[in-house]
Amino acid sequence: MPSQWTRFAMMSYSDALGHVSLDYSGMLLQQEAFKALEEKAASALAELDAIEKGTVANPDEGRMVGHYWLRDPALSPDPAIAEEIAGTYEAIRQFSSDVHNGKVKSSTGKPFQSFVLIGIGGSALGPQLVNDALGGRGDNMMAHFMDNTDPDGFDRTFDSLEGNLDSTLFIVVSKSGGTAETKNGMLEARRRLEAEGLSFQRQAVAITQKGSSLDRLAEVDGWLRRFPMWDWVGGRTSVLSAVGLLPASLQGIDTDALLEGARYCDSLGRASDWHENPSLVLAMSWLLATNGQAKRALVVLPYKDRLALFAKYLQQLVMESLGKEKDKGGAKVNQGLTLFGNKGSTDQHSYVQQLVEGPDHYLVTFIEVLRDRIGPSMSVDGKNTSGDFLAAFLLGTRQALMQKARPTVTITVPEVNAFHLGLLISLFERAVGLYAAMTGVNAYNQPGVEAGKLSAGQALLCLDMAVEFLHNRKGERFAAVEIAEQIGRKDDAFTIFVMLRHAAYNDDKPVKMAGNSAKDAVFWIS
Amino acid sequence: MPSQWTRFAMMSYSDALGHVSLDYSGMLLQQEAFKALEEKAASALAELDAIEKGTVANPDEGRMVGHYWLRDPALSPDPAIAEEIAGTYEAIRQFSSDVHNGKVKSSTGKPFQSFVLIGIGGSALGPQLVNDALGGRGDNMMAHFMDNTDPDGFDRTFDSLEGNLDSTLFIVVSKSGGTAETKNGMLEARRRLEAEGLSFQRQAVAITQKGSSLDRLAEVDGWLRRFPMWDWVGGRTSVLSAVGLLPASLQGIDTDALLEGARYCDSLGRASDWHENPSLVLAMSWLLATNGQAKRALVVLPYKDRLALFAKYLQQLVMESLGKEKDKGGAKVNQGLTLFGNKGSTDQHSYVQQLVEGPDHYLVTFIEVLRDRIGPSMSVDGKNTSGDFLAAFLLGTRQALMQKARPTVTITVPEVNAFHLGLLISLFERAVGLYAAMTGVNAYNQPGVEAGKLSAGQALLCLDMAVEFLHNRKGERFAAVEIAEQIGRKDDAFTIFVMLRHAAYNDDKPVKMAGNSAKDAVFWIS
Repeated sequence: MPSQWTRFAMMSYSDALGHVSLDYSGMLLQQEAFKALEEKAASALAELDAIEKGTVANPDEGRMVGHYWLRDPALSPDPAIAEEIAGTYEAIRQFSSDVHNGKVKSSTGKPFQSFVLIGIGGSALGPQLVNDALGGRGDNMMAHFMDNTDPDGFDRTFDSLEGNLDSTLFIVVSKSGGTAETKNGMLEARRRLEAEGLSFQRQAVAITQKGSSLDRLAEVDGWLRRFPMWDWVGGRTSVLSAVGLLPASLQGIDTDALLEGARYCDSLGRASDWHENPSLVLAMSWLLATNGQAKRALVVLPYKDRLALFAKYLQQLVMESLGKEKDKGGAKVNQGLTLFGNKGSTDQHSYVQQLVEGPDHYLVTFIEVLRDRIGPSMSVDGKNTSGDFLAAFLLGTRQALMQKARPTVTITVPEVNAFHLGLLISLFERAVGLYAAMTGVNAYNQPGVEAGKLSAGQALLCLDMAVEFLHNRKGERFAAVEIAEQIGRKDDAFTIFVMLRHAAYNDDKPVKMAGNSAKDAVFWIS
Repeated sequence: MPSQWTRFAMMSYSDALGHVSLDYSGMLLQQEAFKALEEKAASALAELDAIEKGTVANPDEGRMVGHYWLRDPALSPDPAIAEEIAGTYEAIRQFSSDVHNGKVKSSTGKPFQSFVLIGIGGSALGPQLVNDALGGRGDNMMAHFMDNTDPDGFDRTFDSLEGNLDSTLFIVVSKSGGTAETKNGMLEARRRLEAEGLSFQRQAVAITQKGSSLDRLAEVDGWLRRFPMWDWVGGRTSVLSAVGLLPASLQGIDTDALLEGARYCDSLGRASDWHENPSLVLAMSWLLATNGQAKRALVVLPYKDRLALFAKYLQQLVMESLGKEKDKGGAKVNQGLTLFGNKGSTDQHSYVQQLVEGPDHYLVTFIEVLRDRIGPSMSVDGKNTSGDFLAAFLLGTRQALMQKARPTVTITVPEVNAFHLGLLISLFERAVGLYAAMTGVNAYNQPGVEAGKLSAGQALLCLDMAVEFLHNRKGERFAAVEIAEQIGRKDDAFTIFVMLRHAAYNDDKPVKMAGNSAKDAVFWIS
């Protein structure tokens, strides 16, 4: 094995401008391993190139995949699309400016001081990441999120807005317009505002596809504004559409720099020589680590508090894109790539013990940020700063893993600002696209989530039927299995038990329960 | 296969009082699979029993393992220990009361309104969980955390305290007293207070082992108070020691109920019949899912916003305890159990696609909470509430996984309050202890984290030497590999490069850098 330095000099990448470095010498492989993937890599690049040119890359849904156009509208295959993107960005800029200068006011005429984004999954993770990475006390507006259908979670958000509902803007985000969690959040928020005599529609904007149920509602009710989503942008890559840019712009974050960083990294990611293409090297590293068969999980460890949500963001991007039962040819492959992580050095005091000593199931991806803070640092030991320690801890964990022959990759950026966050988003978006191409899966659909939604609908239907049955037999007590029999849903006794138990613990339905277990529980309405 | 209902009736557990249920019918196994583990389970129970009685369960460090005594001091093998626990709890109660009623004031005589807990890993994750699960707007004090050595992260906490530093209490937590991240945070906080003319020691308390460097510092400098940690409580099980109870008590959280919930679940966890022992069933489920060889990762999905941090908390508890290179006999086993997760139904819109369709590498652990909120809920669809939807989404995902023969376990608790959080903590602590006993690893040490700390120390030393070298050769430019050669640390060229690059991006050292890559970068001091 050549020395660590020789490997590092050979197997690391830096762009000419110093915006991003990628050290893959920690993979502990020879160059030859990467070279063996060159053919695969070239065809993956060609596939991404075709996507950028407007091929229908998501044939299951008959859709183009255009998130790369968002930061470079000129790339899009249709001038109408380029115009729509530019128009939307201009509308965001204008609306933000109107909100900031008080031209757009709340229903009581107050300037908006904060917003609540109501959305889930791809409609929340991006804005949450941007807020956590780039937001702060000096922002134009404070950001809040409702990203679930948890009643207590709603209440906590409303609690934190107490006394300020009349200066709060509500941004309702759902591409399809029909996401139940988002719809529930919107209804609860509307109820809350109306209870205080406020007009929800005069404090709400929608981000959704044209013609969706949410779009129509917002139009009919006369919401403040509607911003488009497009069928050629998937939720998990929507952060640089209105979904991420509207909240960022309202906060006062430099959205142009976000776009510019992504556009810059896109340009790096088109290099045909893999040595010069950081997204491609990343994707190739993943493939070598996993054998294309999910052999290892990606553990993402940014050593920076501001990137604490990055792993959570990437979890959706990577796992929803790559976790597929079938490949594009229809063969059963059960592909996927597990991703988790948080922030260093905090995580050194958590699960690094297992990464070092446990099963060899991981590829640790460090993210190093060079700039420590704005302004000078004190010395904490007579010589070094807190930031020197943070840098040393990253290296320490990297070395400890290396000593146990555990692979690592390290991404280095100078700082966490809008430009470099945009860059990191592009870096991973492209790596995911390339990895999908190399493993032959469609990265742009999510067929596996439908079954759960259908089952949830059935569970609500079972609940309705069971409650109606108990209503009609007031005072009589029934086991779940009896109710199931009586309402003709014999196979749903378990579902009926779970849904009725939940109802019995809350006062919104008159359902009562005695007994705790499947064996003895009975339900009734008195 | 028997019907879903029959399996559920056979393979689910509920305690008599309705405090916790465990549905392991979703494992999709026969009773026989569990029965086959009965012998292993019995001996694991005996091992846990011996631990509770005071055996030296962590022989590597020559320590007893006593976190179970924290909620039931009478269990402890030594009356002196019982007295120490009781005395500490009384001291916490007294101090909190003194803070709340203004008897203990800040250095400027103000009542304390908020606190910053400075700690990392086991000294932060528990308090963060308790705060997120049980804290809220009505708390007696607002909680902040500094759990890293990230300078910008420190600044963000200080920013959020702007104008209120003189009513902020600092709780410095380090068992050993020597944790670098915590020490750095303490030094930065002290500097910040002193810059505003405040006295840190009159606003600080320490939680640490008697005689540690932190303990001595706090004593000499006359901090407000010192609370003990004990060598028989590991960091990852310290949430019910002063580490978790002091901040909780200051917030006004019912710490007695926390302890009571854990004590109650401990009592369930001693049942010798595995059918009646939820921690044991959980541990057996893990063993069946993993084959004792990390075959599957645990994906923890609480369907409740207040439990969003639970997976992060468990990640340390499970992975640091079970991720071990060697078993207790010294054989190389590379044991471990990967754990990640977040909250549902949010995660349905993230990685559930992969859990359903990807590789069969997971055991999903749902946590269901029956109580939706305080007060009534509106109907969102004419019949059902947001909470009904949340319950249905959990079931929907469970059914979708079952259709693909993916195993699940579901834990149900009535609500997220102090009692049930204590219960959940005990449930998993005991499951981890039992799983470790069944797989033969020491769950109470963490030998794998030392190497990283040593390497980090070496990295700082390399930095010091390199900076000194450049100082002595002012104006001359050197590549990292040359510096390494010159200072006699030829093998550390890579480390020197990384540490100098970090220094060059910050103004705290006079190091300059030209070039970006390993091949062309040079460093100098002018």
